[in-house]
Parts: sequence; structure tokens; C-alpha cells
Amino acid sequence: MWGGRFAEGPSAIMREINASIPFDKALWREDIAGSRAHVAMLAAQDIVSAADAETIDAGLAAIAEEYARDGVPEDWSLEDIHMTVEARLTELIGPVAGRLHTARSRNDQVATDFRLWVRHACEESDAALARLQAALVTRAGEHSASIMPGFTHLQIAQPVTLGHHLLAYYEMFERDRSRFADARARMDQCPLGSAALAGTGFVLDRDATAAALGFAQPTRNSLDAVSDRDFALDYLMAASQCALHLSRLAEEMILWASQPFGFIKLPDSLSTGSSIMPQKRNPDAAELVRGHAGRIVGCVTALMVTMKGLPLAYSKDMQDDKPPVFEAAGLLELSLAAMTGMVADSAFNTARMRQLAEQGHATATDLADWLVRAADIPFREAHHITGAAVKRADERGVALDQLALADLQAIDARIDERVFGALSVEASVAARTSYGGTAPERVCEQVKAARERLGLE
Amino acid sequence: MWGGRFAEGPSAIMREINASIPFDKALWREDIAGSRAHVAMLAAQDIVSAADAETIDAGLAAIAEEYARDGVPEDWSLEDIHMTVEARLTELIGPVAGRLHTARSRNDQVATDFRLWVRHACEESDAALARLQAALVTRAGEHSASIMPGFTHLQIAQPVTLGHHLLAYYEMFERDRSRFADARARMDQCPLGSAALAGTGFVLDRDATAAALGFAQPTRNSLDAVSDRDFALDYLMAASQCALHLSRLAEEMILWASQPFGFIKLPDSLSTGSSIMPQKRNPDAAELVRGHAGRIVGCVTALMVTMKGLPLAYSKDMQDDKPPVFEAAGLLELSLAAMTGMVADSAFNTARMRQLAEQGHATATDLADWLVRAADIPFREAHHITGAAVKRADERGVALDQLALADLQAIDARIDERVFGALSVEASVAARTSYGGTAPERVCEQVKAARERLGLE
Amino acid sequence: MWGGRFAEGPSAIMREINASIPFDKALWREDIAGSRAHVAMLAAQDIVSAADAETIDAGLAAIAEEYARDGVPEDWSLEDIHMTVEARLTELIGPVAGRLHTARSRNDQVATDFRLWVRHACEESDAALARLQAALVTRAGEHSASIMPGFTHLQIAQPVTLGHHLLAYYEMFERDRSRFADARARMDQCPLGSAALAGTGFVLDRDATAAALGFAQPTRNSLDAVSDRDFALDYLMAASQCALHLSRLAEEMILWASQPFGFIKLPDSLSTGSSIMPQKRNPDAAELVRGHAGRIVGCVTALMVTMKGLPLAYSKDMQDDKPPVFEAAGLLELSLAAMTGMVADSAFNTARMRQLAEQGHATATDLADWLVRAADIPFREAHHITGAAVKRADERGVALDQLALADLQAIDARIDERVFGALSVEASVAARTSYGGTAPERVCEQVKAARERLGLE
Amino acid sequence: MWGGRFAEGPSAIMREINASIPFDKALWREDIAGSRAHVAMLAAQDIVSAADAETIDAGLAAIAEEYARDGVPEDWSLEDIHMTVEARLTELIGPVAGRLHTARSRNDQVATDFRLWVRHACEESDAALARLQAALVTRAGEHSASIMPGFTHLQIAQPVTLGHHLLAYYEMFERDRSRFADARARMDQCPLGSAALAGTGFVLDRDATAAALGFAQPTRNSLDAVSDRDFALDYLMAASQCALHLSRLAEEMILWASQPFGFIKLPDSLSTGSSIMPQKRNPDAAELVRGHAGRIVGCVTALMVTMKGLPLAYSKDMQDDKPPVFEAAGLLELSLAAMTGMVADSAFNTARMRQLAEQGHATATDLADWLVRAADIPFREAHHITGAAVKRADERGVALDQLALADLQAIDARIDERVFGALSVEASVAARTSYGGTAPERVCEQVKAARERLGLE
Repeated sequence: MWGGRFAEGPSAIMREINASIPFDKALWREDIAGSRAHVAMLAAQDIVSAADAETIDAGLAAIAEEYARDGVPEDWSLEDIHMTVEARLTELIGPVAGRLHTARSRNDQVATDFRLWVRHACEESDAALARLQAALVTRAGEHSASIMPGFTHLQIAQPVTLGHHLLAYYEMFERDRSRFADARARMDQCPLGSAALAGTGFVLDRDATAAALGFAQPTRNSLDAVSDRDFALDYLMAASQCALHLSRLAEEMILWASQPFGFIKLPDSLSTGSSIMPQKRNPDAAELVRGHAGRIVGCVTALMVTMKGLPLAYSKDMQDDKPPVFEAAGLLELSLAAMTGMVADSAFNTARMRQLAEQGHATATDLADWLVRAADIPFREAHHITGAAVKRADERGVALDQLALADLQAIDARIDERVFGALSVEASVAARTSYGGTAPERVCEQVKAARERLGLE
Repeated sequence: MWGGRFAEGPSAIMREINASIPFDKALWREDIAGSRAHVAMLAAQDIVSAADAETIDAGLAAIAEEYARDGVPEDWSLEDIHMTVEARLTELIGPVAGRLHTARSRNDQVATDFRLWVRHACEESDAALARLQAALVTRAGEHSASIMPGFTHLQIAQPVTLGHHLLAYYEMFERDRSRFADARARMDQCPLGSAALAGTGFVLDRDATAAALGFAQPTRNSLDAVSDRDFALDYLMAASQCALHLSRLAEEMILWASQPFGFIKLPDSLSTGSSIMPQKRNPDAAELVRGHAGRIVGCVTALMVTMKGLPLAYSKDMQDDKPPVFEAAGLLELSLAAMTGMVADSAFNTARMRQLAEQGHATATDLADWLVRAADIPFREAHHITGAAVKRADERGVALDQLALADLQAIDARIDERVFGALSVEASVAARTSYGGTAPERVCEQVKAARERLGLE
Repeated sequence: MWGGRFAEGPSAIMREINASIPFDKALWREDIAGSRAHVAMLAAQDIVSAADAETIDAGLAAIAEEYARDGVPEDWSLEDIHMTVEARLTELIGPVAGRLHTARSRNDQVATDFRLWVRHACEESDAALARLQAALVTRAGEHSASIMPGFTHLQIAQPVTLGHHLLAYYEMFERDRSRFADARARMDQCPLGSAALAGTGFVLDRDATAAALGFAQPTRNSLDAVSDRDFALDYLMAASQCALHLSRLAEEMILWASQPFGFIKLPDSLSTGSSIMPQKRNPDAAELVRGHAGRIVGCVTALMVTMKGLPLAYSKDMQDDKPPVFEAAGLLELSLAAMTGMVADSAFNTARMRQLAEQGHATATDLADWLVRAADIPFREAHHITGAAVKRADERGVALDQLALADLQAIDARIDERVFGALSVEASVAARTSYGGTAPERVCEQVKAARERLGLE
Repeated sequence: MWGGRFAEGPSAIMREINASIPFDKALWREDIAGSRAHVAMLAAQDIVSAADAETIDAGLAAIAEEYARDGVPEDWSLEDIHMTVEARLTELIGPVAGRLHTARSRNDQVATDFRLWVRHACEESDAALARLQAALVTRAGEHSASIMPGFTHLQIAQPVTLGHHLLAYYEMFERDRSRFADARARMDQCPLGSAALAGTGFVLDRDATAAALGFAQPTRNSLDAVSDRDFALDYLMAASQCALHLSRLAEEMILWASQPFGFIKLPDSLSTGSSIMPQKRNPDAAELVRGHAGRIVGCVTALMVTMKGLPLAYSKDMQDDKPPVFEAAGLLELSLAAMTGMVADSAFNTARMRQLAEQGHATATDLADWLVRAADIPFREAHHITGAAVKRADERGVALDQLALADLQAIDARIDERVFGALSVEASVAARTSYGGTAPERVCEQVKAARERLGLE
């Protein structure tokens, strides 16, 4: 009936499908911290005696030491980290351990443990993002005036500075940090004391446990508190946005490292070589960062689907909240670290970048803008004139800024020799001084401001 | 070669795949507002003359009137709303219309238009959520002491109050509002002036256009500004969380309206009847709300996949940002309105709820808690004693609170007659006065606080 | 710079992000089988000598024994299962091991290994589905005439038989089996011999390796063969559909086990009890099956996103193909086994089902149909008459089949006493003998046919 | 209370959320065809008279003519296409129209209509894929010997032929066609006659209606038939795989059209130009194809989420099945047509391709293979020797095939002058004659076989 490795029958299957200890053992620190806060409050409220509370607390401290040293034992019959800890506590201190679970339930316990874990993950992601931003800002500072082709549609469009390009990612990661901060703030409420679903008749001090665990306040509704997994979704959504940004930067690294581009040499330490082609430097780390975006999006999808349509209060489906969060957090941590290394240690081939920036008549817009400014021609008309000029340059087989003045004047008599001042790539980038623009002076300002925000100055 | 309705060949296909006017015409208000802010700034900066700016502004105002009256014409050869407006402007005011596009590009234009639209959608969602919260709080106030069975695993667990249950959703929607607020704050930067990708050499006053359009500030990096669709994803992620909450409440409405539950009579206006079964009241609106959660999750997935791995700066893929956002916003608006109606106008069958709350020995936890408090028995031991009592009640075929004292004392001699004060469903809910608990007094406090936050008192 | 546990720097990060051995060690059987087939072919083609081939084959056989006995060692510096096996082979047999990799690459090697694994997973899923179908058919046979309420919109609609209801799931799982079969057939092509991407100049016999590994034929294009992960997606898509079916049956189990329904008692072995409420039987296994649907949908999403937009040929992103497949396969296996147990061992409370089937005027359609047949009234008119009858029954406070004939005739004179033969729930289900209908005789036929398809008769 | 445009209150909201006519009017052909088949069967079974059936059939035929000519009127109070048609029929032929709905329900009616639509969409997708394959095969035939760099990790790896590269996509689309074929076969069962959920007591001939509508057979279980949307998911899953393939080819088109690659000039008709940069040819169509993959994946996600956890039988959530299918089908049709045009009409710059193929020591593997074959060196050793040769070439600043023989022999004395025969890119591709390999002769064979399968020869 059961098939395969389940020949043992239903109880073996139940043990396997039900046990969360293989993954929720990752919560041992949070589980013990939560229990210590709980028992201290029970004692302060005279729900357990001071002596019992002390015994329990010492037992929990001893377990924490054991787990830190030896890891968490994985006994499926104990189901989860909560029972694993309590069972060990009973071994250590006897029946008094049975007082710990007064006025709580596994429902509020796991909600508390997991929130603590996810809150910490938000902090970790923020710190890793700050490191990546620091690497970007450092490289942007070095390359505030390095010229590269700016692309739209992956077609050369206008020259930009490499520093400016790198700072675009700084901005994306700044938004990611604000998302993790928002998520952290929203989850900063302590569910402990919500009990199974209805609260409890014991006279608790929920403010005390919230404060002991560093939460801003207790949750306001016990039914919500035990059936809410928004905090996990908030984390996964922030992680997904961040992973998408990383996938874009990774895509660019892969493009730039490809021979036809040749913009970048990735660090040896984050590439794989080939003994057969020593010059080969596969951008494996960048590809894995790009690939991991898929898995992280898979994680947020998983939890969205799982939560859809669940009635209140706790349902066991919610046990499937942890694997996607743990997986996404691990992938994101690795991705951020790998990307930080690639940004910090890659060598940019600025000569190749500059060479390409001159292709594609990338300063055509500058000609149009010059016509507007110098000859007060409506932009749409200037745009048409420029089109004619570029066509002429193509016919002549030269770059736009190498057309003879006569050629330009044949197209529009209002053009004079001052125009050449606008058509070099250097002039083009130097001119774009609008706020947020690519001009080196703007990039330097942004680098400086970013360094201050990052505490680097 | 082309097949089917594309027999006309590649140009017909290109026209159809490329045209965004069928959906981006929804942006006409934002497009015109953006252009008016832009031209006012160009005039203030002496980039266009005051007279030209006035002509352009008047033309734009006239177009706005036309569109408000007659709708936006859908000419695929004009591709998008930007060209549609500019073409009409040229018809109305002639070549001076060509000055409007000075120092901008469709790339920053669409980014600005769409941000304005999405920012407004955040506000709309917030307002609709506030209406739903008001309905919930009103019904919770009416039912602060109505007893119903609280479920975990859809098994009767402990009695709760209906008011408490409804307030759990109040809390979810409160978090949703904070998400839309966070999203709105994060997107509150104006991309206008970023031009195609590199900024511009015209001396703009981006603070002025940002202020005119109600943005807190201009964006900081032009490459990022034109290739960023985070704001759309932020909206979709907030919408997805909200839709998941709605799907949970919808699931409960459907369950409660099912004959075996019989907890609720949905309003006629939001049900479909059956001429053949007049008593039938299909919860169609609730089912559609639940179903729409799927489509909204599909929308956020769509945009995540589309954005994955796109290099900077603008790529045409990003044109696929609007259909999912428009679809999700429409579905969410409908879902929130329908749910508000169901909450406000359903009739709760509190007699049936109370009857079921007494099943399943729902006050067993109260017996255990009583043993802890009255007899200072460790909770785990109290829990075992309670198990024995429930088993005895089942053998006797009575409810737990109808067991004879002798029966209870045979199980544990420490039980005395005071215990019966704890075992009724009224006593059970009244006792759960911990912060966030289900006791009517707690519910009343929460209702009052919520009404204050909603400005209802 | 690196932060957290990556303080060691880029090489530590690269080792961790790059190593696939933690998960691809699951492929050891397939890797060794592929290598044995490859070396046998190389010998047959005189590319390696018979003696060398024998040495290599014996070495591989020895490694297989080691791994079966001791597990696969996890040395991150060896990256993946392919290098792990080859390194061990070199330890065992020396430099001749270096001949094994002739005319292949890790690209075609991993494509072959993973196909073999996924192909086997298809077979496992099929077998598990057949077991679940057998359980369904057995219970359907027992309950071919047990009457229960059929629901639409979770509102009682018409009486059906429990056997008929269970067979609906038989049909879903039959489609699932056909999907796994289709997927298996489509992936039944051997990539081995495609080498890195371009094929090879060695004179291979790809038909021989394909045959040795049980493939129908070799793949037709080497670039496609090494960059194709359709087979993994085909598996995940079939798994997702199956998981959705399981989620629907799980939802019903959870509903049916809820006290208001009371249709089913789940087996003790697949529920969790509560020492405090002995009658409680939480449907944890059903909830986990329902929850797992979310994670499986997350897995297919993950791989879809990862594959989006990858250029040919192999990119390292594709290494992220395995974790979602392994996760989904494990979750599906558990879900199918748990569901089989729930179907086989649950006790149906047919008395409660029948009682509810009589509510809601579930035979109203039978009255309408009777009017059409007996009085030749157009269906729409019959439908209106029935509505009036049901309304009258409600006013009288009786079930439809307990209305007095006079009452019915007052509504429509064409009604006579024969009508009562149509209005009992037994008559209702017995009448629905259309092909695919709920009549017990039809159910028995379908059970018989299904048992034959399953080889149970 | 209602807010915004819903100020009218609940009935306005219900009308809007409930009405499916805005999208299901697309099913009018299928709805009328289904009704005509149904009424013909009712007449043949003597359930309606021949005269009535004739009247109904003529009425339906008249409606079909109206709709083909004038479109389907969109009256929200009629809810859906089924009521719209029936209401019109009643207007045309009077009360006899009421006989049409005998022995059926909207539940089996919509299931039938939508299956017919989706089945047709499978056929359309197949035909469009065949056109795309024909274009690929034609271009592959032209370029069976055109040499380009083959990439792995977007790094130049080995020379391949362009024909071979194009045929890789032929294979992907061949699998896509088999998926649509599998989906079509699986959905080829007619639900009509399943009625609301339980079948019917009328003596139907379901084989007759199935045959009349071109179905292989009727569905086997009425509960399943009305609550099954697998066929829609099967279509969406096939469409998603196909869209992912298209996204990969689109990515390559975009890369190849980018100036650093310069491999391809996309057809004017499927690019957007720029009046300002006449040489610019934005690959908009390719980008939109790539972007559409996101939306199509969003569609399959939407329906998966919607179907998760729905109990039997029909629930209104299922009304959300159509928008994702219609959207995906439209996007896929456009994407396939646009891609066919790009493949057929792009100009390949084979000179640039060949030039790049010689970079990166792309024939290093050929040296290693030569060493294995000519000198019987184990592959791993040959691989190391090759590494040394490449390193020497880099030091000398020459390509691998331009190293002096003395240089090679200094590395390994077993190398002789025959080696140079293996090191040109022509020799490299010509050598790879393994089945599925890139050699021109192999490509020609595959082109020929493909043309035969496509019926082009």
C-alpha cells in the first residue's frame, strides 16, 4: 500500500511529514531566549515561584551551551524544536520543567521564535547590503569620470560614466535596505502570551516579555498573532526585490565579461578557470547570483500559495513557512557576499569601454540639444536635423563629430563651429549636470553623499 | 508565413506587439499633468519662452478636457499615450508643440506618469482598506461578547468572541495599510529630468517639477530612474499580501455560509440566489474575492519574472509593467469593496455559533489552567489530568462542565466545586483578559482604540 | 568587507556558492551508471582499450559499492558529484581514470545524470499515484450507494454518492499519471555524447549509450542537449498539477473532519491527537499536504524564473535546477503516501452525510426534471414552478418531499402523486444514470473499469 | 461606505465583480456550437420534439450570424455568455427557448465551451510553432556551414555553425508542439451532460454530443467534469515552457544585435528606429517577446493559486480561469509571429561571427582531442598539455593555431605537424560529426529531416 521507503506504513509517513525538527532546529537560540523571557515574566507575576523560575532558567542556559557546542539532536519523535528543548529540560531538571509551558502554547511560541529569527535576518541583509553599497561607492569614486557607452535596449545610446552606472545600483540597494527596515519595523511586535489562539486567563505582563526580547510592543490580537505569517512574507518580498536587482547587476557582469564586450575582468577568486583555456574566466559566481533570483522568487511564491485561503487560527500548513525563508535567506546572503566581491575586485577595462562609447553616434542627442540651445529650434525639429546629420555621417563613413562643418551647414545653416564643442564623448558627459545626471561632478557629489550615509567619511 | 490574423505580415505584428496605447491610455491624466509641470519649469528656467509655455499649457489643458469628455482615441500608429498627447497638441497649437519635449525623453516621462498613477493607487487602496476596517470594527463592537468556537486546524479549540475574531482581520488590514504607506513613501521621488538615461545638459530645476507633481524630491540617479520599476513591484507586493488576507476572510465567509456551519447569512446584494432553491445564497462575491487572490499573485509574479536579469538602462520589456499593475489594482479595488459589503451587511447567526462553541470540550484548557492556579500543579501535569477528565466526559456522554464533581475528584482529588466556575464558555472567554485576549472587555478596548485610529470617534 | 561567516573572503564564498555536491550527490547512482555506459561504448568504438575500460568499470563498480554502504563524501573543493567520483576513481585505479572523460564534458554528463534521476522520479510518482487510486477505488466501491450532499459553492446542491465523489479524484490522478507519462516519454532521449556543446570528433556510438541507459534514442542537437532543462520543468509542472489536486482533496478532508461537518474520522496514525482533548484529531497530515502544494508551486516557479532569458549553451544558472526538483519530488512522495493512508483508513460517517444531504431541498432539481418529463413543461418554466414549491416548503417548515400534494398542486395543477417518487435523496441519486452520473449503478461500473485499469481484478 | 466609483453600493459592486461577459463573450462560437449539439441530441433522444429542436437550432444559427456581424452585446445584468445567448434566443423564438437548458447546467456548459476554446488554442499554437520552425529550418539550411563562436557562460568556448545553433531552437519548439499535442489529447473529453455536478436523470446520449463537438469521448465523472480546470493549466504550462524558449531566443537576438556583438541586423519591420540615430535599430519586438514570458508565467501562476484548495464541485473562483488563458494565448500568438518574422528576415553578419569564433582559443579542445587520438594520451593529461599550449600562445600573443611547432613540441614532444590540421575553426566544426554535433554535414542531415517532418519537402 505505502510503497517505496514508506513500506513501514502510515506511522512512518506521519513521523516524516509531521516532523519539523530537521529545519526548525535552526530556531534553537530564539526558542531558548523566548522561554527564558517567558519564565522570568511568570516569576515576576507570581505565576511560578522564583525558585522554580531560577531552576528552569539555569536548565535552559545549560541547554543553550550544549546546543552551541554539540548541535541540536534530531529526534523525529519529538517533532519540533519546542518539544526537543522541553524534553531535554525535563531530563535536566525534572517535573518542574512542566511549569515552563504555563500560559503559553506552541502556537504563540513558534510565532515568537520565528519572528525573532526573521527580524535578525532583516538586520543581516541590511548589513550585507551596506557592504555591497560600500564596494559600489568605492568603485564609483574611482571611476567618476571613466566613460562608457550607456545602453538602452542594449543599443549604444549616450555616453555615461562608469561611476554613474555603478551608483544606479547603489540606489537600488538603498531601496532594498529601506524595505528590510520597513519589514523589520512592521514585525516588531511580540506574539508571546497569545497562547493557543484566545489569550489566557493568567495575569501576564506581555510588555515585559516583549521588552525582554527587544520587541517594540506586544501584538494586539491573539487570533491574528498565531495565524499571521506576514512578517515572513515581508522578508521574502524584500529579498525578492533585492535578488532581482542582483540579477540585473549579475547579467551586466556576465555581459561585460563576455569577449565581445570585454569591459571587465572578474576576480580569479570568484570565477572558475579552465586548465585547458587559461585565459578563460567563467563568471560562475555572477551566473549563480542570477540563477538564485529564480529560487528566491520561488520561495516567496511558495509561501504566498501556502497562505492563500487559510481560515483562522493556526493551521498546520503554516509549518511550511520556514523552509522557504531559510532557503531564501541563505541564498541571499551568499549572493550579496559574492556580488560584493565581484564589485570590489573586478578590473574594469576602461579603454575598451571608452572605445565603444564613441560608436553608434552616441552624442547625437547632444547635437539636437545644441541646436535647441544655440539656435532656439524646437526640440522636435532639432531632432530631425540631427537625424539628417547622422545619416550624412554614415554616408561619409565617419563619426558624427568628424563630419565637416560644411556638411553640417548643408543640412542646416544655423549650425556653426561651436557645435564641435558639444560632440565629443567627454563634452557629452561633462554637460549632463542636471541633478542625477552622469557628469563627473555630479557623480562625485553623489559618491560623497553616499559615503556619508554609509558612515565611510 | 505569418499565419492567422497576422497574414498582413511583420508590420502588422509589430504594430500590435509594440502599441501600448490600448492600456497606457489609462495614464492620460498623469501624462498631461507631467507635461504641464515640465513646461512650466522650462519657462521658469528660460529654456522655453513664457509665451510658448503658455500656449503649450493651454493646449494641454484643452486636451485634458477633451479626454475627460470623450475618452482617449486609440491610434496604434501613435504607439503610446505620450505620442498621442503630443500629436494632438501639435494639431492644436502647431510646431511650438515641439518645444515641450525639450530636456526630457519618453523614458523619464513614462517613469513619471506611471509613478503618479501607482502612487494614487496606493492612496486608493488605503482608503478602501480604511472603509473595510470601519466595517469590521463596527461589527466587532456589536459582537464583542458574542461567543463562537475558535478553531485551530479547523477543529474546535477554545471559545472566542466574534468581535475578537473580526478584529484579527482589522489587524491584518492595518498592516496592509502600512505596506501601501511604505510603498508610497519609497516611490515618492520624481524621475522627470532624467531624460533618456544620462540626465541632460539643460539647466533644469528638478526640485520644481518634483514639487509641482507632489513628489518629496527628485530621483538621485538618472540611469536608475529610467530603469527602475520597484515602485510597481512594491505596489503589487502590498496588493498580494492584502489579497491573501482577503482570501482568508473570504474562505471563512464561504465556510460560515455553508449549511453545516450556518454561522452567517450573506447579504442578498452580494450573493447569487437560485430561482429553483430560494433559500440558496451562493457566496459568489466571497468566492470571487478568494479567486482574485490568485490573479493578483499572478500579477506580481509576472512583473518579477519580466524584470529578472534586465541590464540597464531602459529595455522595452518594461512596457509589460503596466498590464499587471492595472489588473491587480482593479481586482483589489473590487475585492475590497465587495468584502466591505459582506462584512457590513451579513447577518451573524450567533445562536448557532454559541451552540457549536460548547462542543468539543472547548473549555478543557480552562480546566487545566484552573488546576495550575488553584492547586499549583505544573501545567504539563494539569494537562494530563484534564485529558483524563475529558475522556471521562466522553464515556459519560456529557460535556466537560456537566461531569459530576465526584467524577472529577476520582481523577484528581485536588479538584473542588469552584472548578465549575471556569468551565462554561462565558467564563472561559471572560477569563481571557490577557492583552490581546478574547475577553469582551478586551475586545471593547480594542474596538475603541481602533475607532479612534480610524477617526470614527 | 565580507561580513558574517564569510570573513574568510572571496574564496570561501566562491567555494560555498559554487559547490553543488551538497545536493547533487543525490545523483551518484546515475553518474556512475552513465560513466559505465560511456566507457563501455568507448571500448566498443576502440577509443579506449578493452583493458582500460575494464579497469575503469571495475573501479566505478567499487565506488558504487562504497557509496551505497557509506554514503557520498562531501568535499566542497571537488565541487560536484562528477569530480567526486572521478577523483575517487583516480585514487583507486590511477591515471587510467583520466581516459574516462574522453569525448564527454560535465555539460552532457550532468544533463544525462539528471535526466535519469527525473525519469525515475516520474516512475515513482506514477507508482505512488496508482497506490492512491487503488485506495480511492476501494473506498468508492464500498460507498457506491452511500448518499452525501453534493456541494457547489460549498452550498448543498444535489445529493451524490460518496463513491462518485471519491472517483472524481480518481480521474484527477489518472490525468496526473498521464502527465508524468508524457513527461517521461518526452525526456526519453540521451544527451550523452553532446560533449561541451558542439558534439565531438570522436567516432561515438550514441545509440549504444542511449540504449545502455534505457533511453529511446539520443538527443538530436548537442547545443540544445546541454542547455535544455525542459525535462525538469515537465516534471515540476506535472508535480504541481498533482499537488493542486491533492490540495483539493486535503481541503475536503479538513472540512469533513471539522465538527460542523463531521463526515469523517481520520486515522489516528495520520492525525495528531491532544492529551488534553482526547476526542481531538487534528488533520495535520491533510494540512501539510495542502501546505506542500504551495512549496511545490514555488519549485516550478523557481525553475521557470531561473531559465528565463538564458542564452545558449550551458550557463551556470542551470545548476539551480536540482534543488527545486529534489524538494518537489520529496514533498510529492510524502504527500501521496500520506493521502493514500488517509483515503484508505479514514472512517466515513455516512449517517451524518445522509442527514445533511436531505437539507437544503437538495432534490429541487429532481422536481424540475420531473415536471419536464411528466408534464412536458419547458425546463425554464419547470425551474420557476420548482422555485415556488421550495418557497412553500420553507413557509411550511418542511422538506420539499414532505409537502402535501395539495400544496404542490396549488402551485401547478399538472403535478400528481407520482412526483414523490422523484423527491427522496435515494430516488435522486438512483435516477442520475447518465454516463458519468452519480447513480450507484454508474459508480459500480466505473469502479469496475478502474480496478481493471489498475490491474486489481 | 463603498468609496470611489462604487458609491452606488453593493449591487453595483456585485454586478461588476460577478459579470464575466466582458471576457467570456470570447466564447460565443463555442457556446452556440455546444448548444446546437445539445439540442440535436435532445431531439434524437426524444427529450425535446424535432420541431422545437429545429426552432431552437435555427435561432442559434441566427444569433451566430448576428454576433459574427455585430459582435456580442455586453449587458452585465445577463452576467455571462450563456445567459446572453439564451436571452437573445428567447427574444427570437419565445418560450420554446426554455427547452434548450434541459438536462444541462451552466456548470457543464462553461466547462464544454472553454475546453473547445482551449483545444482550438492548442491547435493555433501548434500551427504558429510550425511556422516558426519552418523559418528556423530555412535559415539553418542557409547557414549550415557558417561559423560562429559557441558560448558557454557567455564565454567563447568552441566554434559551432549558425545552422546548428538555430536548430537547437527547432528542437525546443518541437518539444513545445508535443506539449500542446499532449495537452490537446488529454482535454479531448466532453463534459456536456454532467449537468450541475451529479449527472442527470434524462436519458442522454453523451457520445453523440461528444462526437458532434469533435471530442474523442465524454468525461467519465460528472463531479470531476464540472470542477476540473486541468485543461486550462495544461495549456498554460505548455505556453509557459514555450514562452521561456522564446525568451532565450529573444535574449540572443538582443545580444546579437548589440554593437559589441554585431552578429545580426534585425528586420526594419520588427525594430523601432530613431529619427535621431538612423543606424539605431532597437530590438523592441525581441524585448517584448522576452518581457511577455514574464506575463505568461504570471498567468500560469495565477490559475495555480486560484485552484489551490478548492473543494468539489464548482466554485465561483473558477470563473477566474479565463482571463489568464485568454491573456497568455494572445501574448503567445503575438510572440510566435514576431519571432517568426525576426528569424525569417534578420540579416546575419557571418563575417563578424567568424571573426569572433577565432578568439578565445576556441579550438583548444580540438588540440586535447588530437592528443588523445594521435598520441593515445589519457584525456585528463591531454587537457593539461593543452593548457600549457594555450598559455604559451598567450605569452607569444598569437592564436593557438599560429604557435610554432617547436613551441608545441617543447611542451610535449608527441605533438607533430599533423596537429595544425585540427586547429582551424573550419577543421574544428567539420570534425564534430558525432550524432547531434555541429559539423555542417550533420546540420544538413538535420535540416533535411526537419523539413520532412514539417512537410516542406
